[in-house]
Amino acid sequence: MEFSELVQQRRSIKSYQPGREISDAELKELMQEVVLSPSSFNLQHWTFITVRDTALREKIQESAWGQEQVGTSSIFLVICGKLNAHEDAPKIYQSVDQGIQDKVLPLIKSFYDGKDQLQRDEAIRSASLAAMTLMLAAQNRGWATVPMIGFDPDAVSKLVNLKPNYIPVMMMAVGFQKEEPRPRDYRRPIEEVVKMNTLNGPGLKG
Amino acid sequence: MEFSELVQQRRSIKSYQPGREISDAELKELMQEVVLSPSSFNLQHWTFITVRDTALREKIQESAWGQEQVGTSSIFLVICGKLNAHEDAPKIYQSVDQGIQDKVLPLIKSFYDGKDQLQRDEAIRSASLAAMTLMLAAQNRGWATVPMIGFDPDAVSKLVNLKPNYIPVMMMAVGFQKEEPRPRDYRRPIEEVVKMNTLNGPGLKG
Repeated sequence: MEFSELVQQRRSIKSYQPGREISDAELKELMQEVVLSPSSFNLQHWTFITVRDTALREKIQESAWGQEQVGTSSIFLVICGKLNAHEDAPKIYQSVDQGIQDKVLPLIKSFYDGKDQLQRDEAIRSASLAAMTLMLAAQNRGWATVPMIGFDPDAVSKLVNLKPNYIPVMMMAVGFQKEEPRPRDYRRPIEEVVKMNTLNGPGLKG
Repeated sequence: MEFSELVQQRRSIKSYQPGREISDAELKELMQEVVLSPSSFNLQHWTFITVRDTALREKIQESAWGQEQVGTSSIFLVICGKLNAHEDAPKIYQSVDQGIQDKVLPLIKSFYDGKDQLQRDEAIRSASLAAMTLMLAAQNRGWATVPMIGFDPDAVSKLVNLKPNYIPVMMMAVGFQKEEPRPRDYRRPIEEVVKMNTLNGPGLKG
């Protein structure tokens, strides 16, 4: 679908037709588009846990205010960010020119090493960029989505066996919508959203 | 353009044709698509500062490792996140049913109040979702982009007059690419990116 139409059509959908399957092969095709998202230094901080197991979904649902889409969506994802993704740089850069490696690898190390807040920020940033691509790529296949932050991160981390170097950045339901969405919610006007030169500059008129 | 083609075509571009203009009207049209991105509780934590002033761009460039795209891109944005966006909830929800307001507003307040880390996470998450939409919406107009995190956040915050309740989430150059991008960088294989049920579960084969 044409992008502008797609972005208009995408809505956050919480009500899904249960029992509708999306295959692993279809999910893989979707993900091949998602991983084309950019990330800081191409570190690709994202990992997507697809929860197929029904009992596990039920437990996650309990940790997510009982939200029904955890159970009824075709695909349910815990989107994670790797805090120490910068340590993967040697592997990620292994096939680029040695000259570039010699320049970039020490830069990455010094940029992230020991900086806990930056590592967390980065994991959230990269995983969120990928999450947005995922929502649009899903919509392009006729699949609805909803990003979720209403859950207990510690409980969910335990349920999907996250190690301490991973955080859940958001969860995402993907599936077939049950009914037409209600009208789109309020959006802040562009003059308020875009400011000229500084935060207290005039709003964009256009 | 069709989405799958668009997502393949989008690359991070650092080299721009200088002096090519994108008007405020064109930027506004772009932003009307960007603000359709989802955000937690629809709080729309994002604010985009468009730096048109040449002297200011030069100062930002100095705070950003001298990266040339700060000066040469048609549009240069500091994408900010509002830490206390939850305090805007009464305004954002003012035209929804009173019954929903009575339920949602206290929920939002208790979810965010006093939780500094969560507020920061949320600002980064929402602004990053919008940033990804922006990159794709720009590409759809034939404009290249590059997201940037290589800059001194304190220096940039001062330069664009951010108040303490805002953080710079990333910067973004938008413009006309000077040359064809080099081949796409390494991507982690899907089996490594998507795990079944738990982080240590098998990778997605598809």
